[in-house]
Amino acid sequence: MSSVQGNAAGRPEETSRRGGREARRALRAAPLAVNDRPVNPGMEGGRFQALLPADIEKIHRAALDVLAEIGFADAIPSCIEAVTAAGGKLESNGRLTFPRSLVEDSVAKAGRHFVLHGQDPKHDMEPWGKRVYFGTAGAAVNIVDPVTGAYRESQVRDLYDIARVVDTLEHVHFFQRTTVCRDLPDPFEMDVNTCYASVMGTTKHVGSSWVDPAHLKLSFEMLHLMAGGEDKWRARPFVSQSNCFVVPPLKFAQDACRCLELAVRGGMPVLLLSAGQAGATAPAALAGAVVQAVAECLAGLVYVNALKPGAPAIFGTWPFVSDLRTGAMSGGSPEQALLSAACGQMAHFYDLTGGTSSGITDSKIPDAQAGGEKAYNHALVGNAGANLIYESAGMQASLLGFCIEALLIDNDILGATQRTIRGIDVTEEALSVETIRSICLSGPGHYLGSEQTLRLMQREYVYPEIGDRKSPNEWTEQGATNIVQRAVTKTQAILKSHHPHPITRNIDDVIRARLPIRLPQEAMGW
Amino acid sequence: MSSVQGNAAGRPEETSRRGGREARRALRAAPLAVNDRPVNPGMEGGRFQALLPADIEKIHRAALDVLAEIGFADAIPSCIEAVTAAGGKLESNGRLTFPRSLVEDSVAKAGRHFVLHGQDPKHDMEPWGKRVYFGTAGAAVNIVDPVTGAYRESQVRDLYDIARVVDTLEHVHFFQRTTVCRDLPDPFEMDVNTCYASVMGTTKHVGSSWVDPAHLKLSFEMLHLMAGGEDKWRARPFVSQSNCFVVPPLKFAQDACRCLELAVRGGMPVLLLSAGQAGATAPAALAGAVVQAVAECLAGLVYVNALKPGAPAIFGTWPFVSDLRTGAMSGGSPEQALLSAACGQMAHFYDLTGGTSSGITDSKIPDAQAGGEKAYNHALVGNAGANLIYESAGMQASLLGFCIEALLIDNDILGATQRTIRGIDVTEEALSVETIRSICLSGPGHYLGSEQTLRLMQREYVYPEIGDRKSPNEWTEQGATNIVQRAVTKTQAILKSHHPHPITRNIDDVIRARLPIRLPQEAMGW
Repeated sequence: MSSVQGNAAGRPEETSRRGGREARRALRAAPLAVNDRPVNPGMEGGRFQALLPADIEKIHRAALDVLAEIGFADAIPSCIEAVTAAGGKLESNGRLTFPRSLVEDSVAKAGRHFVLHGQDPKHDMEPWGKRVYFGTAGAAVNIVDPVTGAYRESQVRDLYDIARVVDTLEHVHFFQRTTVCRDLPDPFEMDVNTCYASVMGTTKHVGSSWVDPAHLKLSFEMLHLMAGGEDKWRARPFVSQSNCFVVPPLKFAQDACRCLELAVRGGMPVLLLSAGQAGATAPAALAGAVVQAVAECLAGLVYVNALKPGAPAIFGTWPFVSDLRTGAMSGGSPEQALLSAACGQMAHFYDLTGGTSSGITDSKIPDAQAGGEKAYNHALVGNAGANLIYESAGMQASLLGFCIEALLIDNDILGATQRTIRGIDVTEEALSVETIRSICLSGPGHYLGSEQTLRLMQREYVYPEIGDRKSPNEWTEQGATNIVQRAVTKTQAILKSHHPHPITRNIDDVIRARLPIRLPQEAMGW
Repeated sequence: MSSVQGNAAGRPEETSRRGGREARRALRAAPLAVNDRPVNPGMEGGRFQALLPADIEKIHRAALDVLAEIGFADAIPSCIEAVTAAGGKLESNGRLTFPRSLVEDSVAKAGRHFVLHGQDPKHDMEPWGKRVYFGTAGAAVNIVDPVTGAYRESQVRDLYDIARVVDTLEHVHFFQRTTVCRDLPDPFEMDVNTCYASVMGTTKHVGSSWVDPAHLKLSFEMLHLMAGGEDKWRARPFVSQSNCFVVPPLKFAQDACRCLELAVRGGMPVLLLSAGQAGATAPAALAGAVVQAVAECLAGLVYVNALKPGAPAIFGTWPFVSDLRTGAMSGGSPEQALLSAACGQMAHFYDLTGGTSSGITDSKIPDAQAGGEKAYNHALVGNAGANLIYESAGMQASLLGFCIEALLIDNDILGATQRTIRGIDVTEEALSVETIRSICLSGPGHYLGSEQTLRLMQREYVYPEIGDRKSPNEWTEQGATNIVQRAVTKTQAILKSHHPHPITRNIDDVIRARLPIRLPQEAMGW
């Protein structure tokens, strides 16, 4: 048992002599063993059902119909070759169709239960079943100042800073690149530096993306250097590729497909990303948007498994929502929560590792609108049990802006969401009949300082990092701050002090000699 | 079918000629029939399960044990008389215990499926099954300025203003008194004016409370005048009594019991309110807090049904949460969401109308913390299908402060929550295979302006009232407002113009001649 429990149980008299409040304070100061934490990465969701089992079957069958009867346009020759060899058909209209049996066979042999590695093994993730992990993502083009609301172009330095902040956050479990390095107009420099800045900023699992296989090839050389050799990289690939292989509806993105093929060969897990937008590039009917996303990701799965059976691929159903009045994206809408939750459930149906998005807001700044939109999305998508929840922190303006300080605000929302995923413990002990009896019939008539209360204080309750729970008087006396102000202060402290160094400076020198790294070595705290 | 659908379906050629955006704008301007709205009061929840069926059974059995073996202290003579006549036992330790069969019989004969009336019948609620309604509540002692964060004492005028704002909000379905009239130190004046200001500010169903049966007796006279006679009041009682009959753990509140008895006799529905605080006045183990709340409300139900079988009573399990480090309440915590969701499910188990709380925040102001805490609570408690969700708008600082402008922010969160409760329509038409086929094989390759998109625009999608979905550029050009600023502007407009007059000025004069009404008639827009 934990030392915390041991302490509390071991000194009941002392506790009651000293009073509950003092005892609770002493207890709170003690470090908590990982297994005793109220929440941990990868807890099991599944208590929210956007779809009932019969709905899931219907969506599956409709997706099979779409693939068999409509199929994909714009397949590249290597894709056509691999997929037709597996049983796909190139139709007279040029579309590649996928017979139902091919899709079902591909699902059966698909890679599942693969670990997503961190550079530090303590961050390894096991995202299958109904286990839930939260991470960032995005390709925001602006950084938002949370106080002034000013937008400016995002740079490589921002990406590194964001990764460093994520590295410190308990409830953000992986880092996928969040922002476009607009100071690096050359696509090769952008691709290489995006991967570099991400991997150097955090030892958590990283997702990145590439626009050209040649860029990926050189990035692989860098990753092998970082890992200490290709064999070590292949044993623990700590970067996955976010790959938009499909331009919805149902067209292959040709350059992305070439990058996908290289990733599969290079042992890099692929996030098969279908990001249609309901009412624009996907049906406005939510069920139809899920059907299309599932069909598109199933096609990607057939493709990957035709290249290499069992290659690790994430079922990345990310349907987005349009505000149908304007056609603009609305990532903070309630319809988004339903779509992403439903997608999490579809991955369960196939027993695949599912990725989806949650936690985008339409607000430009981290105000109450942002908090609200992020939280109802997370509560439902997280409790649906989606395995990998992308875009979960920092994102503003429906993917157009990223706010570094919002990461800390969102970390609190994610911690709370995780607590709801953990759920209610309903053991005999937790039902508390004996505790109630003792308090009412022979005790003090309240539960403050009781043995049960002290024991559960840290193991059952989550506390916010920057959320404020003071009384109005205390809060006013201490400066009446809002959560943005507290986030700014804490972010500055993190950025000043936290520089993970996953590789040695010597290896970094070797990388810099071979590749145009644009993040100054002096900025990296060495 | 709706005129919206008829229009869209009736002019496909015109639509495609004019372009999707213009057609969408024209459509948006048309009024929408109530039945075609994407959300309506009283939609069915139940898709989130904080408790599994076996957990619910365990909690039920534990609650029966608590009532049979521990029982209640401090019963008043009339309570002892009624309950022992029904089968309860006064034990030698002075506690009133409730045999399991008595509790089960009381549940069987309890009032269920009773309407909660508005003064205006369009606001009548049918809160049973898994139907969900959101309303306010609270006894906040301060009004918060959302811009400066300043706290000041709440007054009767504030209560009237809050009721008026609630009267205009689509997603707040009932009004329970939110704030204490601190300008009325006399308890009689406070009770009468609290009821008066609430009922005059909104024609939605009202909840109020009384500290003394004498105050309630005179309030009944007022309500009969307002209704047009006692018979009309009894036919459509539009005020329910929020009654804290229990001081947790398991002690009767004597004055509240006297008010309860009068309400039951007077045809006023009673909210049987058990508001223990986990870790302080209820067990720290969440399951135990639910057990205690259920036991307490079951005792209230036995009491009410011993007085008058079938009298309308709301099963008001409102367990709150302590921050166990300080003992202070934490209404915005994730543990709160689990407790309230579980309580909603317990009421389903008994087929009773359940009331619980959701949407309190610990933040002192409507910042991102407030938005986040409110939203994850609402998303889970609402989707659990709790029937009457109190404290759902405006509340700050864990019940110590109320922010009028936050009502508008929270109305957006509630609208979004309601959209998630409505869920995903999975009909053949919604699965959209034919739409996908037509768009991909013979259409424009996108869904903007398609017949399906236009038809679903207003019937399937909810739009925020003050939430902003503009692009960063447009938002910046239009003043870069945060949601608080927009809420302030809109609140001022409502308060300036909206004065419901549920009664005539002549009736009001009669009431004022009999009772010390402290809200100036001049302030009421007559």
